[in-house]
Amino acid sequence: MSLKVYYDLMSQPARAVVLFCKANKIPFTPKPVALRKYEHQSEEYGLISPFRKVPVIQDGDFTLTESVAILQYLAERFDCPDHWYPKDRKARSKVQEYMAWQHWNTRMHCATVFIQEVILPKATGNPPDEGKLRKHVAAMNTTLTNMENFFLKDTPYISGHQISIADLLGVCEVEQVVASGRDVSAGHPTLRTWTERVKSELRPHFDEVHTLMHSLRDRNKKH
Amino acid sequence: MSLKVYYDLMSQPARAVVLFCKANKIPFTPKPVALRKYEHQSEEYGLISPFRKVPVIQDGDFTLTESVAILQYLAERFDCPDHWYPKDRKARSKVQEYMAWQHWNTRMHCATVFIQEVILPKATGNPPDEGKLRKHVAAMNTTLTNMENFFLKDTPYISGHQISIADLLGVCEVEQVVASGRDVSAGHPTLRTWTERVKSELRPHFDEVHTLMHSLRDRNKKH
Repeated sequence: MSLKVYYDLMSQPARAVVLFCKANKIPFTPKPVALRKYEHQSEEYGLISPFRKVPVIQDGDFTLTESVAILQYLAERFDCPDHWYPKDRKARSKVQEYMAWQHWNTRMHCATVFIQEVILPKATGNPPDEGKLRKHVAAMNTTLTNMENFFLKDTPYISGHQISIADLLGVCEVEQVVASGRDVSAGHPTLRTWTERVKSELRPHFDEVHTLMHSLRDRNKKH
Repeated sequence: MSLKVYYDLMSQPARAVVLFCKANKIPFTPKPVALRKYEHQSEEYGLISPFRKVPVIQDGDFTLTESVAILQYLAERFDCPDHWYPKDRKARSKVQEYMAWQHWNTRMHCATVFIQEVILPKATGNPPDEGKLRKHVAAMNTTLTNMENFFLKDTPYISGHQISIADLLGVCEVEQVVASGRDVSAGHPTLRTWTERVKSELRPHFDEVHTLMHSLRDRNKKH
């Protein structure tokens, strides 16, 4: 099997790549890299990923980093159904527009809330800093509202009427936030409908790659 | 002329889009949006760009935001020479890899140094905070070294042996830093050779769109 995927299921973009391979029945050799054990800092991994991040793919002698580039590559390389990365120029541009926008928006703000609520309390043994958390949750909510009012305003999926790699990246970022037990879609009805739609389309694979995130969610659930 | 480009030449990604149109002789109606006059905050501009950013393009009734998406769209829509956005899957993936990477690297760190050295001193009347500036310059230098050691390690351009939209985005970010009079390529010989190569390929258009940045540079030059 020539395609190797380096990932950790704690990483949102790595989950998106694994999920894409599973949903499209793309055969790959799984190469788990445990971030919590600092395996990404090993000398060996530095040769594969100089930036020491996941995901990375190797297709024969071709190595590619960056989830956005990887998903585009895989969709074309394995001739996946058109809706994942549409050939229609305008639909494809909407996918690319979201994938560029998300770096400083969904990706940044959802990850920051996760770090404040889950990673830092675990690392320090202290509860989250409430002031900082409030600020970061407000920034995340602005981003999620923007997503509803722009990318999901008129269509059930980001690029139109079918699921694409943009939805996949988006839903994995949003789902990171639930690990603290937080209801991330509260106050975001369009987002809630969209996440449910995308998840149900990706089952059972969605749940498979989110097992760890969901066990954190269930442990932290606020009643 | 159906293509409209909304831009401000103070914006790095907006310059990349205008430069791409000029280099490829793509006819467009220029729609300058003066950020310093807060024109992006007008009610009228909010209808074009809900996130109130530049660049934005309108091609007939199709509106597109995000420079990365815009450049990919224009290269295909106007059937530009292949090297700008290569059809070869691996070369194209390297372009996409850089364009995804740059958001949190070249884009973030070069812009932050520019803000610390040019925007904040102008807005507050105070000199840059030397401690903060040192930290941000160090982060930028790490990014520029990474760019040399990864994206420019074996090839004269990011995707290989010819210029692409990735180089265009990269050079416009790097050139933002010179506005303070700083020699951004100091200590980065590979970067210096690459920027000179890209600039000379883009002349006279490179200098046209950088008139304002270069007049700031000449005013601030430290000698």
